[in-house]
Amino acid sequence: MTAYTKHARLPGQIVMLGFGSIGQAVLPLLIRHLDLPDEPITIFAADANGAEIARESNARLVVEAVTPENYRAMLGPLLSPGTLLLNLSVGISSTALIELCQQSGSLYLDMCLEPWPGGYVDPSRPPAQRSNYALREAALALRQKYPTGPTAVLTMGANPGLASIFLKQGLLRIAAENGLQLSPTETIDWAALARRLGIKTIHIAERDTQVTGRRKQRGEFVNTWSVAGFIGEALQPAELGWGTHEQHWPTDASRHGNGCDSSIYLNQPGAATRVRSWTPLEGAYHGFLITHGESISISDHLTVWEDGEVAYRPTVHYAYYPCDDAVLSLHELAGSNWSAQRTRRIIRDEITCGMDELGVLLMGNCKGAYWFGSRLSIAQARALVPHNNATSLQVAAGVLAGAVWAAQHPNSGILEPDDLGYDEVMQIARPYLGDVVGVYTDWTPLEGRGQLFSEDLDRDDPWQFKNIRVH
Amino acid sequence: MTAYTKHARLPGQIVMLGFGSIGQAVLPLLIRHLDLPDEPITIFAADANGAEIARESNARLVVEAVTPENYRAMLGPLLSPGTLLLNLSVGISSTALIELCQQSGSLYLDMCLEPWPGGYVDPSRPPAQRSNYALREAALALRQKYPTGPTAVLTMGANPGLASIFLKQGLLRIAAENGLQLSPTETIDWAALARRLGIKTIHIAERDTQVTGRRKQRGEFVNTWSVAGFIGEALQPAELGWGTHEQHWPTDASRHGNGCDSSIYLNQPGAATRVRSWTPLEGAYHGFLITHGESISISDHLTVWEDGEVAYRPTVHYAYYPCDDAVLSLHELAGSNWSAQRTRRIIRDEITCGMDELGVLLMGNCKGAYWFGSRLSIAQARALVPHNNATSLQVAAGVLAGAVWAAQHPNSGILEPDDLGYDEVMQIARPYLGDVVGVYTDWTPLEGRGQLFSEDLDRDDPWQFKNIRVH
Ligand SMILES: NC(=O)c1ccc[n+]([C@@H]2O[C@H](COP(=O)([O-])OP(=O)(O)OC[C@H]3O[C@@H](n4cnc5c(N)ncnc54)[C@H](O)[C@@H]3O)[C@@H](O)[C@H]2O)c1
Ligand SMILES: NC(=O)c1ccc[n+]([C@@H]2O[C@H](COP(=O)([O-])OP(=O)(O)OC[C@H]3O[C@@H](n4cnc5c(N)ncnc54)[C@H](O)[C@@H]3O)[C@@H](O)[C@H]2O)c1
Repeated sequence: MTAYTKHARLPGQIVMLGFGSIGQAVLPLLIRHLDLPDEPITIFAADANGAEIARESNARLVVEAVTPENYRAMLGPLLSPGTLLLNLSVGISSTALIELCQQSGSLYLDMCLEPWPGGYVDPSRPPAQRSNYALREAALALRQKYPTGPTAVLTMGANPGLASIFLKQGLLRIAAENGLQLSPTETIDWAALARRLGIKTIHIAERDTQVTGRRKQRGEFVNTWSVAGFIGEALQPAELGWGTHEQHWPTDASRHGNGCDSSIYLNQPGAATRVRSWTPLEGAYHGFLITHGESISISDHLTVWEDGEVAYRPTVHYAYYPCDDAVLSLHELAGSNWSAQRTRRIIRDEITCGMDELGVLLMGNCKGAYWFGSRLSIAQARALVPHNNATSLQVAAGVLAGAVWAAQHPNSGILEPDDLGYDEVMQIARPYLGDVVGVYTDWTPLEGRGQLFSEDLDRDDPWQFKNIRVH
Repeated sequence: MTAYTKHARLPGQIVMLGFGSIGQAVLPLLIRHLDLPDEPITIFAADANGAEIARESNARLVVEAVTPENYRAMLGPLLSPGTLLLNLSVGISSTALIELCQQSGSLYLDMCLEPWPGGYVDPSRPPAQRSNYALREAALALRQKYPTGPTAVLTMGANPGLASIFLKQGLLRIAAENGLQLSPTETIDWAALARRLGIKTIHIAERDTQVTGRRKQRGEFVNTWSVAGFIGEALQPAELGWGTHEQHWPTDASRHGNGCDSSIYLNQPGAATRVRSWTPLEGAYHGFLITHGESISISDHLTVWEDGEVAYRPTVHYAYYPCDDAVLSLHELAGSNWSAQRTRRIIRDEITCGMDELGVLLMGNCKGAYWFGSRLSIAQARALVPHNNATSLQVAAGVLAGAVWAAQHPNSGILEPDDLGYDEVMQIARPYLGDVVGVYTDWTPLEGRGQLFSEDLDRDDPWQFKNIRVH
């Protein structure tokens, strides 16, 4: 048996909520790399999926849904200083859980800020209230209420999560390429660095090519990770960090008029919003601008303030080209006016080939656009950790790194991925990311445009959102 | 051996151009149902695909591309009164061939009006000149030049082709449902009938669910019929017959300013234009508004003129939900800004299941929208005729019916599907269309709209193109 490094000791035990594609993926990693107490890990899930996997790891799977009514009674007794509440579920309010942890002194980590069920698709609430922006503002507001609480790491998976780490690695590489020497000991002002490097637009540029032998059936939504989670975020308004270089306000966009103001939202779901992007292996592609926490947190963290005014901020958003069966699922979902498919399938063990190519694309520097990220094939993922596909392992690597960080820094309050030590996180996650590569490209969204049909383009600045959005 | 009915005698032999998915599909049908001279059928194709199938039918396959330079010398000697030139190719000018046939006294049939190679994607020509409207005007202009020529049946496949026949069958059924008695002997004024029934919008509503065990690969375009043909028309401007009920002019639309004026075009390719439609088995879906001859011919034929003014015309267009691998191919094609995939695959023998559900959706009558058309499964198609999938057999049925019509009416000049006897055509084609069904629905494009996000809709008239187009 391989002896794995134990990165940190957790004084209390882990309580896990949700045991779906990511819960099952991350459990072996936690056991592998954390020094945990002897008692079993407790997992709450709404269904018995993965019971065998829990058993094999000696975890106690309790099949009972956590609800607004029962969560305090159910979880309270299990939480104490030194325990870690890992929220890997869908449909449990993150802010409710964060508060509970702050009050009980427990560590906390989630992969996504979630409302209670229906929060994403409640037509009685205006789009702004169904945004990730609103969820983040509410979660970060708890910092005032619990200024010295235990560490709570928000939205720490692959994206959101490692995306914020890739971004910093990418910025450092571009800095080096531009002959900019940064002393290894100085505290880097990332916003100033991004500004100095001329970064105007940042995509989280992902192409998932995993496929199975059994195609998506009619009326079925197929994905490589949570179908419920994906449908939820796909129906939220499209959201993007809105850069200071942008000259063309989208006619269907709104500002929130409260909070950090780093991002805007469009009056349509992300599943209906296509954007042009690029990855090294896919080349130019159309991705979906699905709202994600990192679009808001990165644009906020990379804002340069001068005299109370925003002097610099990049545009930041997701450009997701999911696996082929998910593209077809989205097309079908759109056709039914967003009435979700009844049948759902998360593909893992049946995957025959493919990889998840997930990184950040940093645009605006004079050396060209730079993609930095992970290429993990299904074969690599399987060889590394059981119960994974390529996507889940990239996410699980982020969760593991976040959990280790929390165990090592237990008194840091409410944190985003952007607040963690990028180097430490990368070291923990790195072994599970396959090939980590950085690639320059001369691609711009103006490439090949306006040839057969005239298009309203800004030819002076390729990195305008107007050029990137597919109309 | 089954004895098949010979529907007509052709005094001369068939000369076929193109032996791709449709050529191979239609050859057995022609031999089955036409009384042909004893000498072999001659086929010209640009590649040797299907050589085995030609041999098996005793046809002479000449692998040589027909070009603007050689077509007269190559085809002229084979054409004489009583021969039939069947143009089932891509990239040979239809008008050039029609003229040649008019001059040599030959019958002619094609499935699509084609320019010489590159005509669809020549960026030096404005969108209007790359439209089917322009191709049709040019072809119909030959009526003046050859007013008493041999029969030339234009665009006679499934759609264009049988779509015009389904339309008439559908109108008759709606008329009956509305208690309108039409004497079987009277000449029906179809435009007046459509107007009387309140038909505002007509879709050619098609969903192809055929799949194979081998998925579309990266950089590959997969379809159930001509990939070259589909890419060509998908990159032409989106075109639609423009109805008199329309209240909202699309900002990116243009009129041609010449000719019959029945249709308009959008300043974008059909592959980028999505519309809402409905078929009985798919339900509500998003289809692609690919330009097609029938959008223009049907809207022209259903125009009611009063005192030199257009008093009535329906909106007519295609709403194509191609097979899943073609949807993915279009997504990839769009992502590369319409630079066509190098690898191409037409699926036929490898298809494992699926059907082509192809019909017309007639909207506006008080009894609801009515879909009328063919549902042909891959299993049905294979049982009926060798070398077919469901799509090719629907097309081949139209070609056969058109060829029979031409043989029976050899001196009728230049005709569109709308000019043929709908009843005779239907009788010939019917055995190859699987289940022919008519279904009413209360679906409208307003169903489920504007719930999560406000939408700019015309709630007073569901059948406005504005409600149908996906923005
Ligand atoms: N940041 C990232 O990179 C990233 C990546 C993937 C997923 N996610 C997010 O992580 C979450 C989980 O993803 P997944 O793919 O594992 O989801 P999944 O759908 O596979 O599993 C969800 C799990 O939550 C459980 N659950 C649902 N409701 C519950 C309730 N009320 N009480 C207790 N358990 C409940 C389900 O039983 C299931 O075990 C989702 O919110 C998803 O959006 C984030
Ligand atoms: N109306 C309809 O319902 C309908 C349906 C399907 C296809 N079509 C049209 O019919 C045509 C053929 O469709 P398909 O699926 O058989 O196409 P395909 O791509 O399978 O085959 C095309 C054939 O044309 C031949 N060809 C190409 N260039 C040639 C040249 N210069 N000289 C001689 N032969 C040449 C090729 O060698 C091949 O045999 C296309 O234009 C397509 O758009 C119409």
